Amino acid sequence: MANFASIVVTGANRGLGLEFIKQFVSSSPPPKTLIATCRNPSEATALQEIAKSANNVHVLKLDVADYASFDNFVKEVGNVVGDDGLSLLVNNAGIMRGNKLDDVDPKNMIENFEVNVVSPLMLTKALLPLLQRSAQNKNKTVVANITSKMGSIDDNTSGGCYPYRTSKTALNQVSKSLSIDLKPMGILVGIIHPGWVLTDMGGPNALINSETSVSNMINTISNLDANTSGKFLNYDGKPIPW
Amino acid sequence: MANFASIVVTGANRGLGLEFIKQFVSSSPPPKTLIATCRNPSEATALQEIAKSANNVHVLKLDVADYASFDNFVKEVGNVVGDDGLSLLVNNAGIMRGNKLDDVDPKNMIENFEVNVVSPLMLTKALLPLLQRSAQNKNKTVVANITSKMGSIDDNTSGGCYPYRTSKTALNQVSKSLSIDLKPMGILVGIIHPGWVLTDMGGPNALINSETSVSNMINTISNLDANTSGKFLNYDGKPIPW
Repeated sequence: MANFASIVVTGANRGLGLEFIKQFVSSSPPPKTLIATCRNPSEATALQEIAKSANNVHVLKLDVADYASFDNFVKEVGNVVGDDGLSLLVNNAGIMRGNKLDDVDPKNMIENFEVNVVSPLMLTKALLPLLQRSAQNKNKTVVANITSKMGSIDDNTSGGCYPYRTSKTALNQVSKSLSIDLKPMGILVGIIHPGWVLTDMGGPNALINSETSVSNMINTISNLDANTSGKFLNYDGKPIPW
Repeated sequence: MANFASIVVTGANRGLGLEFIKQFVSSSPPPKTLIATCRNPSEATALQEIAKSANNVHVLKLDVADYASFDNFVKEVGNVVGDDGLSLLVNNAGIMRGNKLDDVDPKNMIENFEVNVVSPLMLTKALLPLLQRSAQNKNKTVVANITSKMGSIDDNTSGGCYPYRTSKTALNQVSKSLSIDLKPMGILVGIIHPGWVLTDMGGPNALINSETSVSNMINTISNLDANTSGKFLNYDGKPIPW
């Protein structure tokens, strides 16, 4: 299925992030290094269990909103991946502020923008030397941004949800620019909607489970090419309008 | 051409904002009240000249990034427009941070998001009681958000320009949600690209002048209806893909 030598997944302590780690660990061949990040590694019980029994799994502390910590994080990742560089970055960490017009305010707008837009952009920028190293080794190199159909302007027929919607729409534009700017370096950019998934964020009325979402997303990421880089894709690879 | 009883234009001291004021002042019939806002009224020489010779023009101080001042601003506008309410809000004030990947940072991303996205959203929300008063009087009532084709993800073929592009893309999504949420109140939302205009922001290589841009935009705003509210429109009313 997936065939990336070295992978970083952010927000990997639960939900889709944790499922990414589970499926990458059991993929064949497994990645040489699989870096799972979260804000509080000591509290990430399920993640630590996986790391105990798989010596290619590294749990690193990362608060994606703490931009000042990125330089140090990149050094840690560089030490783990070595000459391979980084072949896949999954920008999965995100928050949802679903505020409607009556309670949207500058604070929830900016919080959601910082974590869902500025963080993946700045983390991608910080990890660029390691991504370039992978691409220079002629390995498939991908930045996969986990976005949401809630960010589709075309698909917005119910309004509201100002902070979350705008953050995902802005992430789509960031990702489009990245796909253009990183193309000369041989790095592809995936813009992927996970589906409406049964997680803490998705709630109990969701349509698919994490396993289905992530196995499809890994497939879509693995199949990414010059034609689908920078396109808005459903978890199963089908296009979504902006 | 335009037929709005009471109008607020933000960022009206220069460029497109000033041109909006000039053209609204000389429209037939002229609006009963035309409120031009800017950060420093005492330095807005051209605007003060217009206000001196037209007693329907009111220059009010407004820093669109100073959300805490909005309550007071709404009171001032309410005193000027009275029972008419506000029939047209032109969210024109904006900034451009055109940073590429090598110098984009959290500061320029968030600055551009605050002024170009959070400000028009919060100002619209603050002015909603006055806009509703106009709509309840059965008058055409419009929020016109001045966006940019640079915010079109579909049209992004050159990458870069992270802060500005994402801010305008996010503004488009905010505007789409507003168009849905304000529809039951009878308020229309315009999402309008001014063209590439010869202003300080547009630079010397622009394609059209302010007069052409604004006369077309006023026409497009005046013609806005239930079908074009919430659509991304060129200054001349032609549709633009998201």
